Amino acid sequence: MFPGATDERGGSDAGDDTRDGANFVVVGAPLDATTTFQPGTRFGPRRIRTFAETFDDYDRRTDQYFSELGVVDRGDVRAWDDIPEYLEWLEGTLRDAVWDEAVPLLLGGEHTVSLAGARAVEPEVFVCLDAHLDLRDTYDGNDLSHACVTRRILELEGVEEAIILGARTGSEEEWERAEADDVTVVPPEEVADFSFGDRLEGREVYLSVDIDGADPAYAPGTGTMEPFGLEPREMRDVVREVAPQANGFDVVEVNDRDDGQAASLAGKLTREFVFSSVARDEN
Amino acid sequence: MFPGATDERGGSDAGDDTRDGANFVVVGAPLDATTTFQPGTRFGPRRIRTFAETFDDYDRRTDQYFSELGVVDRGDVRAWDDIPEYLEWLEGTLRDAVWDEAVPLLLGGEHTVSLAGARAVEPEVFVCLDAHLDLRDTYDGNDLSHACVTRRILELEGVEEAIILGARTGSEEEWERAEADDVTVVPPEEVADFSFGDRLEGREVYLSVDIDGADPAYAPGTGTMEPFGLEPREMRDVVREVAPQANGFDVVEVNDRDDGQAASLAGKLTREFVFSSVARDEN
Amino acid sequence: MFPGATDERGGSDAGDDTRDGANFVVVGAPLDATTTFQPGTRFGPRRIRTFAETFDDYDRRTDQYFSELGVVDRGDVRAWDDIPEYLEWLEGTLRDAVWDEAVPLLLGGEHTVSLAGARAVEPEVFVCLDAHLDLRDTYDGNDLSHACVTRRILELEGVEEAIILGARTGSEEEWERAEADDVTVVPPEEVADFSFGDRLEGREVYLSVDIDGADPAYAPGTGTMEPFGLEPREMRDVVREVAPQANGFDVVEVNDRDDGQAASLAGKLTREFVFSSVARDEN
Amino acid sequence: MFPGATDERGGSDAGDDTRDGANFVVVGAPLDATTTFQPGTRFGPRRIRTFAETFDDYDRRTDQYFSELGVVDRGDVRAWDDIPEYLEWLEGTLRDAVWDEAVPLLLGGEHTVSLAGARAVEPEVFVCLDAHLDLRDTYDGNDLSHACVTRRILELEGVEEAIILGARTGSEEEWERAEADDVTVVPPEEVADFSFGDRLEGREVYLSVDIDGADPAYAPGTGTMEPFGLEPREMRDVVREVAPQANGFDVVEVNDRDDGQAASLAGKLTREFVFSSVARDEN
Amino acid sequence: MFPGATDERGGSDAGDDTRDGANFVVVGAPLDATTTFQPGTRFGPRRIRTFAETFDDYDRRTDQYFSELGVVDRGDVRAWDDIPEYLEWLEGTLRDAVWDEAVPLLLGGEHTVSLAGARAVEPEVFVCLDAHLDLRDTYDGNDLSHACVTRRILELEGVEEAIILGARTGSEEEWERAEADDVTVVPPEEVADFSFGDRLEGREVYLSVDIDGADPAYAPGTGTMEPFGLEPREMRDVVREVAPQANGFDVVEVNDRDDGQAASLAGKLTREFVFSSVARDEN
Amino acid sequence: MFPGATDERGGSDAGDDTRDGANFVVVGAPLDATTTFQPGTRFGPRRIRTFAETFDDYDRRTDQYFSELGVVDRGDVRAWDDIPEYLEWLEGTLRDAVWDEAVPLLLGGEHTVSLAGARAVEPEVFVCLDAHLDLRDTYDGNDLSHACVTRRILELEGVEEAIILGARTGSEEEWERAEADDVTVVPPEEVADFSFGDRLEGREVYLSVDIDGADPAYAPGTGTMEPFGLEPREMRDVVREVAPQANGFDVVEVNDRDDGQAASLAGKLTREFVFSSVARDEN
Ligand SMILES: [Mn+2]
Ligand SMILES: [Mn+2]
Ligand SMILES: [Mn+2]
Ligand SMILES: [Mn+2]
Ligand SMILES: [Mn+2]
Ligand SMILES: [Mn+2]
Ligand SMILES: [Mn+2]
Ligand SMILES: [Mn+2]
Ligand SMILES: [Mn+2]
Ligand SMILES: [Mn+2]
Ligand SMILES: [Mn+2]
Ligand SMILES: [Mn+2]
Repeated sequence: MFPGATDERGGSDAGDDTRDGANFVVVGAPLDATTTFQPGTRFGPRRIRTFAETFDDYDRRTDQYFSELGVVDRGDVRAWDDIPEYLEWLEGTLRDAVWDEAVPLLLGGEHTVSLAGARAVEPEVFVCLDAHLDLRDTYDGNDLSHACVTRRILELEGVEEAIILGARTGSEEEWERAEADDVTVVPPEEVADFSFGDRLEGREVYLSVDIDGADPAYAPGTGTMEPFGLEPREMRDVVREVAPQANGFDVVEVNDRDDGQAASLAGKLTREFVFSSVARDEN
Repeated sequence: MFPGATDERGGSDAGDDTRDGANFVVVGAPLDATTTFQPGTRFGPRRIRTFAETFDDYDRRTDQYFSELGVVDRGDVRAWDDIPEYLEWLEGTLRDAVWDEAVPLLLGGEHTVSLAGARAVEPEVFVCLDAHLDLRDTYDGNDLSHACVTRRILELEGVEEAIILGARTGSEEEWERAEADDVTVVPPEEVADFSFGDRLEGREVYLSVDIDGADPAYAPGTGTMEPFGLEPREMRDVVREVAPQANGFDVVEVNDRDDGQAASLAGKLTREFVFSSVARDEN
Repeated sequence: MFPGATDERGGSDAGDDTRDGANFVVVGAPLDATTTFQPGTRFGPRRIRTFAETFDDYDRRTDQYFSELGVVDRGDVRAWDDIPEYLEWLEGTLRDAVWDEAVPLLLGGEHTVSLAGARAVEPEVFVCLDAHLDLRDTYDGNDLSHACVTRRILELEGVEEAIILGARTGSEEEWERAEADDVTVVPPEEVADFSFGDRLEGREVYLSVDIDGADPAYAPGTGTMEPFGLEPREMRDVVREVAPQANGFDVVEVNDRDDGQAASLAGKLTREFVFSSVARDEN
Repeated sequence: MFPGATDERGGSDAGDDTRDGANFVVVGAPLDATTTFQPGTRFGPRRIRTFAETFDDYDRRTDQYFSELGVVDRGDVRAWDDIPEYLEWLEGTLRDAVWDEAVPLLLGGEHTVSLAGARAVEPEVFVCLDAHLDLRDTYDGNDLSHACVTRRILELEGVEEAIILGARTGSEEEWERAEADDVTVVPPEEVADFSFGDRLEGREVYLSVDIDGADPAYAPGTGTMEPFGLEPREMRDVVREVAPQANGFDVVEVNDRDDGQAASLAGKLTREFVFSSVARDEN
Repeated sequence: MFPGATDERGGSDAGDDTRDGANFVVVGAPLDATTTFQPGTRFGPRRIRTFAETFDDYDRRTDQYFSELGVVDRGDVRAWDDIPEYLEWLEGTLRDAVWDEAVPLLLGGEHTVSLAGARAVEPEVFVCLDAHLDLRDTYDGNDLSHACVTRRILELEGVEEAIILGARTGSEEEWERAEADDVTVVPPEEVADFSFGDRLEGREVYLSVDIDGADPAYAPGTGTMEPFGLEPREMRDVVREVAPQANGFDVVEVNDRDDGQAASLAGKLTREFVFSSVARDEN
Repeated sequence: MFPGATDERGGSDAGDDTRDGANFVVVGAPLDATTTFQPGTRFGPRRIRTFAETFDDYDRRTDQYFSELGVVDRGDVRAWDDIPEYLEWLEGTLRDAVWDEAVPLLLGGEHTVSLAGARAVEPEVFVCLDAHLDLRDTYDGNDLSHACVTRRILELEGVEEAIILGARTGSEEEWERAEADDVTVVPPEEVADFSFGDRLEGREVYLSVDIDGADPAYAPGTGTMEPFGLEPREMRDVVREVAPQANGFDVVEVNDRDDGQAASLAGKLTREFVFSSVARDEN
């Protein structure tokens, strides 16, 4: 269970909780099927929950307790080999949360799972922190590869654009696709000074954090390290700015092949999302 | 390149080699798609080749030099997501070896790759060292899962029986399947005293070594550790006995999640197979 | 959740389960306070549950499904610094299980937690697999150190004797204590041939497995490795023999400082206990 | 022995040394009792000494040889379970150094050991680099937890204030305590531009470096990683500024769960402290 | 084989390649003989090649495909104990590349191998990214130690000067040597703003990247971590600026004692060199 | 310091010690120069001392306290690149011990250091536990390689024979050398039943334990794993039998590339040697 969350029946690790409904629903999606280089994303959800145990319940900036924000952890949706089927099943679980007016917090698993997230949330804008464009049409013959996920999401009905922050590599085909009007790429060097302005206002937004957006020093436990990446504070500031507009969130591509850096950062960004999201509602 | 092997053009790490054709063909098959628990078999072939670097070229028991036995390393057949297609492609590569009258030495990769090996070699008897029966009809809806490989091989035309040594676990369905006439299970406790007698004589045999047949102490770097397993000398003695009858060999399920024990054992057993196989021919 | 177990409300990972009460209650006790050398037993329960995921539900020897044996996993009793208080709290949780006529399956944590187990179960005989005698009166001034646990248990009312299998080291004081009538030490070399005969018959028995009873090759992930230890099959045979007589079980001293060998063995022995225990009831 | 230090009898690794007394006294304090999440601080002192072996004896900035600065390594004060007793014993060892007019250099161990350091040095100002406020009154019922250490030090007679640099998390109670006049918190984002001015002038100062003040990328080997932290150069500049005023120093919370990053940084900051401290004396 | 490179016979991993000659020649030099602290540079070349597998063939900035740039991988020049002999042999291999008008890309191995590179390339300027000055005359009695390599290179006929970027430590002797006219040291803090201007114009340049120039967070897998180092983007910008002038390149001191960070950075910088070098030629 | 040993001045970790002279002298020899495959023997002595911390001072079998047996730890003889020089220096240190009528206990370091041990002790019989014959004349052009050490020792004046237990591999040249009258090879399968009888009686004996004599499961932390090896109890029984006759002992080839198994076994065998050696003297 994500530390500070309750389980489905309202039981809580962190004390009494008498809320009627959940505001946020954590779902683990340990898919590890198309990981290109180093596998292990199947251990991502477990690892994120574990390394989040050290964080204080209280957040000073927003003056809130995580455990009082109505976060429910529904556990993992166990993955199997048939990716299309799995994504449908996962989408169903996330859609339940959406129908209950909760914001899904998806813990990957490979980036492919964002497709289920976006299908359930039906955003107009897909905001993504990622080292990669993920705009391939297919990869190794598979159109549901993690390397195609942003392309697939752009094809969903209702999705108007993708904003990819921190991207620094891609195939020529991907860079060409990125030149279309519905894609904005913010290179890592420009993320610190980038602002969404009022671009997200009044629109449905889904925020996806591919942990490899960070420089490998900050998240070595990921499938495809790509140097020259983002600093954690830059990622945090994006999360803080987008969260109040977002109806869905995921953090993906964390594996168990480091000393906890990737999972620690992923858990922290998930909490930043929740704290910033709620802070909006209350103002 | 497997230490002591030559590459396809007859170049050799170990000195001059003027043979016309290969007697053995090493092929890496880094498939890592259906691994149930801990992934990493994609690093198996590389790791086996690496940890084999420490072995002496000369084998005292058979008075032979590995580098003189005509072993050619064809490198890896890179894996992708479509397992049926991949197995066909791999089978093609192995069949080339068979048609050249060489014995394929397949380095996995998950156990599924043995299906390609068996298809290429077309054995009458499938001998297997494994902790698991691998006799499921499907696993997680996938009939090409590593957990189904022995069942699939039994369905191949011409395969008359499977002899599984070291098996200690399986589903009820698998154990029932194992009671049929075409399956012999030798539990780990009985392997030391087991002998094939003349059972393999005059028959086409394929030998598959799932490294998890060993006790986890000897091969922790594998996807699904199963305690109470075989000792390496027991596995070695099976390899020595079967090799002179076998026209195909593989060692599978080695990953990179230990300190080299699994890969070291896998490389050693591959060499034992070659030394024992050749020794036969010369007598 | 231990794979194959259900949670407290009857929910199950493994299918429908309509039992009224539990036969076995898993409780994690991640105490890591007095570990002498290498710490990490706090990760023991989590790690045992994780590495047990690879085991088949079905057990051939006893023809049983683990998930049908009424095993409930109550999660962990979170540890804190005050050991006496913690042990009392833990004892309460375990006593609840005993009062419900279930057999507690305690996952350590350091060996000290066996004291809570023994207090809850109130055995006449304490059977223990351990490299160490654990018969110190105090260790570093602490009479609740893991190095004193068997001594403390011998002092409990109703406990008549301790049988320690695999012990190969101790202080002179401990060896002297071990010469008293209420202690039997079976050195590792003699465990294979040791039999309890009818010694346990009709008596209340508690079985404790300190994973360091195994040789370090089989369980390097433990606080104090002690070479020249037991083989897993020897430990298994003790568990099989004692289980039908035992009303309480624990496996302790597993940490996260290996590649899963210790946890895998611990989970397997826990299952062997359950399978053998039930098999008794049904005959 | 810390590389470049001598042992108590004046023997030296680094050449002849005929000094009468020590200027600095290294003491290891491998306490690992209240570590919240990942244990291993017991290996901190050993690991810091080891990874310091690669540093050059000579420091260009201050034109000094570390081995000529009168650093004596008294080894470790072995830890045991009784924290109050242990702290007293450790305090005694450190007070000996203080009475000999040497500056103690304490290598933790968990942050709790700073309490012994502060008691021995009796500072007016406690300067601390830390991700955490450590201002709890008790933690898990323990008022000597590492999470309470700055609070405990503020209660010491003579301690006038605490300046905590890099703090980014705490409980609500801690943040309230932090608002009192005797606590200054400099958030990580402001450390680069922060200056003590003449605030430390003429006052007794103790400098404590909790390695988790650094961002996890720079020190993953610590008990509770907290993202968005300090960069090593920021920590170094604080050490350089404070050292000339400080009569005591420690670096704490280093464990062995990374590839040496945390220990390497800790050893380097210890050397920076010594070089900067002496540079002052000579001007 | 370095991903995207071809082997000596023109075979390619990445598609058809009909070039007559190579523009760049990759040579691994796994020397690991004088490594001071943590050994393992013998695994450097293999590890760099492996972690480079995740990089896209296409480079957006220069609009080039790595696999089309004529990079040939000649494999490793196996190391042995006699360093002078080994360096000669290695020099011969590299000189072959130079005579074929290709730029050698040397993958270390310890820094000593740069001496072979510089002898083969015969540069006027030796540009080096390194935490260390490497200007010792001898180290432990060995004048071919990695700690002497820049000094040795300065002694080569034709070498006019060394420019060392990121250096932050050295012996007093080295710093004195560094004050001579033929050495320029750019401390880490000044690298970001440093520019070569026209200093390299029209001169033969060799670029050597000692991976320990990076801060340990970015490259923990190296023999002697030295905190307060360069950020990867700073190193990248130096590589980009120097590459169009350089006729030789190496990246050294990568070992296997981290989670891939050092190797990933090394592989990336090698590619940046190639992309930037070619971009020059085409303008 | 080896746990239970005293330092040169009679100071002791384990209590008061008023002995005049040492009976045993521990010397670390972290040579790591010719290691063929995986380096790291430079960390051997430190690691053996560390993992020996968990052992009880008291030994039941011989009824002795290790700390009362007069073991002095002289620390490490730091290694450098010039092997002939280093061996001479090391020999000098060991000879000092011999002249003081103490038995040297050498902790390697690569096997080459045994040559210094044998030169200092001047045995008539060299008994060795090793996977390898180490009978090469030169290896990679180096006659002081670890792979030549037993050959070099046989060439020493006074050495009459070598008895190598557990050897299972070697070059053809080595096996031929092994057929001479002065070499006895006991293959691993025969070690359990082997007895020295009165062969060592009245002769000067040196006992060398190459940890790779053990099966890799028991000692994965070594440079060249060789499967099908000895069990620890078999090694122990050889040590127990030889110790009472031996005037010198070493344990070599331990590195830091496992989870402590190799070091733990090495420390234990060292203690067995001491206990058994003294037991002899007192009877
Ligand atoms: Mn992505
Ligand atoms: Mn990505
Ligand atoms: Mn299998
Ligand atoms: Mn298997
Ligand atoms: Mn115990
Ligand atoms: Mn024990
Ligand atoms: Mn702190
Ligand atoms: Mn802290
Ligand atoms: Mn260098
Ligand atoms: Mn360097
Ligand atoms: Mn040897
Ligand atoms: Mn050996």
